[in-house]
Amino acid sequence: MDKSIGIFDSGIGGLTVLKELCRVLPHEKLIYLGDTARVPYGTKSSDTIRRYALEDALFLLKQGIKLLVVACNTASANATAYLKEKLSIPIVEVIGPGARQAARSTRVGRVGVIGTEATVRSNAYAAEIKRIDPEIEVLSRSCPLFVPLVEENWNGPEDEAYLEELKSLTVKRYLGAFKEQGIDTLVLGCTHYPLLKDTIARFMGPAVALVDSAQETAREVHGVLQGMQLLSSGRDTVPPLYFVTDAPDRFTHLGTRFLGTAVEQVKQVEM
Amino acid sequence: MDKSIGIFDSGIGGLTVLKELCRVLPHEKLIYLGDTARVPYGTKSSDTIRRYALEDALFLLKQGIKLLVVACNTASANATAYLKEKLSIPIVEVIGPGARQAARSTRVGRVGVIGTEATVRSNAYAAEIKRIDPEIEVLSRSCPLFVPLVEENWNGPEDEAYLEELKSLTVKRYLGAFKEQGIDTLVLGCTHYPLLKDTIARFMGPAVALVDSAQETAREVHGVLQGMQLLSSGRDTVPPLYFVTDAPDRFTHLGTRFLGTAVEQVKQVEM
Repeated sequence: MDKSIGIFDSGIGGLTVLKELCRVLPHEKLIYLGDTARVPYGTKSSDTIRRYALEDALFLLKQGIKLLVVACNTASANATAYLKEKLSIPIVEVIGPGARQAARSTRVGRVGVIGTEATVRSNAYAAEIKRIDPEIEVLSRSCPLFVPLVEENWNGPEDEAYLEELKSLTVKRYLGAFKEQGIDTLVLGCTHYPLLKDTIARFMGPAVALVDSAQETAREVHGVLQGMQLLSSGRDTVPPLYFVTDAPDRFTHLGTRFLGTAVEQVKQVEM
Repeated sequence: MDKSIGIFDSGIGGLTVLKELCRVLPHEKLIYLGDTARVPYGTKSSDTIRRYALEDALFLLKQGIKLLVVACNTASANATAYLKEKLSIPIVEVIGPGARQAARSTRVGRVGVIGTEATVRSNAYAAEIKRIDPEIEVLSRSCPLFVPLVEENWNGPEDEAYLEELKSLTVKRYLGAFKEQGIDTLVLGCTHYPLLKDTIARFMGPAVALVDSAQETAREVHGVLQGMQLLSSGRDTVPPLYFVTDAPDRFTHLGTRFLGTAVEQVKQVEM
């Protein structure tokens, strides 16, 4: 029987990666774990992030998966080397694919990276981009208000207008310096940020390419499975299974906004 | 030897309660625990909040305390009954003192309550206010963006202006309905919110009294210790001891803003 792909995130953001996986690999079975009892990871220390990430990975391994996707920039940036040392399963994380796409995309050799505090502190994107091309200048900035803005659940057209104003103000503040510094490529280095793509694109203008790690990561997963001859032989499309460590209702509700379709079959588990 | 007062919060917000305790009870020894490895509690389920709160309390009990302060509205609202059932030490939480002050304060009989999702969902403030006076109407609203706005760490005068604009917009959106509904008392039902007091007061106007649970709670702690003849006999002022479950540097840095003075002696512990 075909095994599943296991995907984990600190919470709900990894659904943007799962969404791309569904698109690129419609015949694969997917198991998603959101560690909602300990979300967010982005304000925590590297040691704690590594510990949580290993527990997440071990839970998915017990479900019998063929490949592990670290669908969280913070965990990818802080825990990938640790997970690769501890586990023997193929692991795809989100930093490498995003960094490669950024290096391909920049013409002026100046790239901006935005993410959580822990992702920016790790310097993982900058290191990976510079490994590909040491000439590229990388400017990084953490944007702590973006995640709560994406998760804000106001309703109705008046709320939408307020929220858009808040988003615009915040984007202007966080990204104003990048614009002055003349970057031509901006990495959305957090799985929540694709939901701010329109606001960010409007502010940065058409000359700045936005790199969405989710899309790049899904392509990499396809490549790895193909290379290892692990692609599913099935032709059915099975809905993903979701596990969370807390508050399944909140996950179901918010998740639908991330996925664009209904999130179903969410089970709460203890770790 | 005099025992300490133990205080816990999901993270850093409880420092607003500790600050008031220092003012009201300058000769008491204080031990603070911030569960920064699992912060925030406000978006989590009641079951998970109860489990975390009990672990926090047990850690403090091991330090040999004479009284436990639940310096977190979310934990107070969701876990107080559970803690009182499990533990035999005197426990002071923040909902009761805030509710009593709100009931005393309102003239028109209409009170607003703001807090995290989990505090508002628990209905704890409304239940406590109505227990005191069933005629009082209580209107509640969760304000998820307030905590990240308080923790936002922009620097410089230009950042301050931006942040003030964001705060004003958010306050207007969350509290606009309260103003229309004619409340005359607003409970700041989250330990982070006293740091938004000026913005909230400016928007609500001088006719609306703001209830800060931290101040009321410190008075209650004084009363309980006096009643049980447990007040410290010492005349020295000893700086508080701080424990966190993750990222002591972040706690030290942000904490200074909450406390108004330097946070020192922060130790990381595992639970």
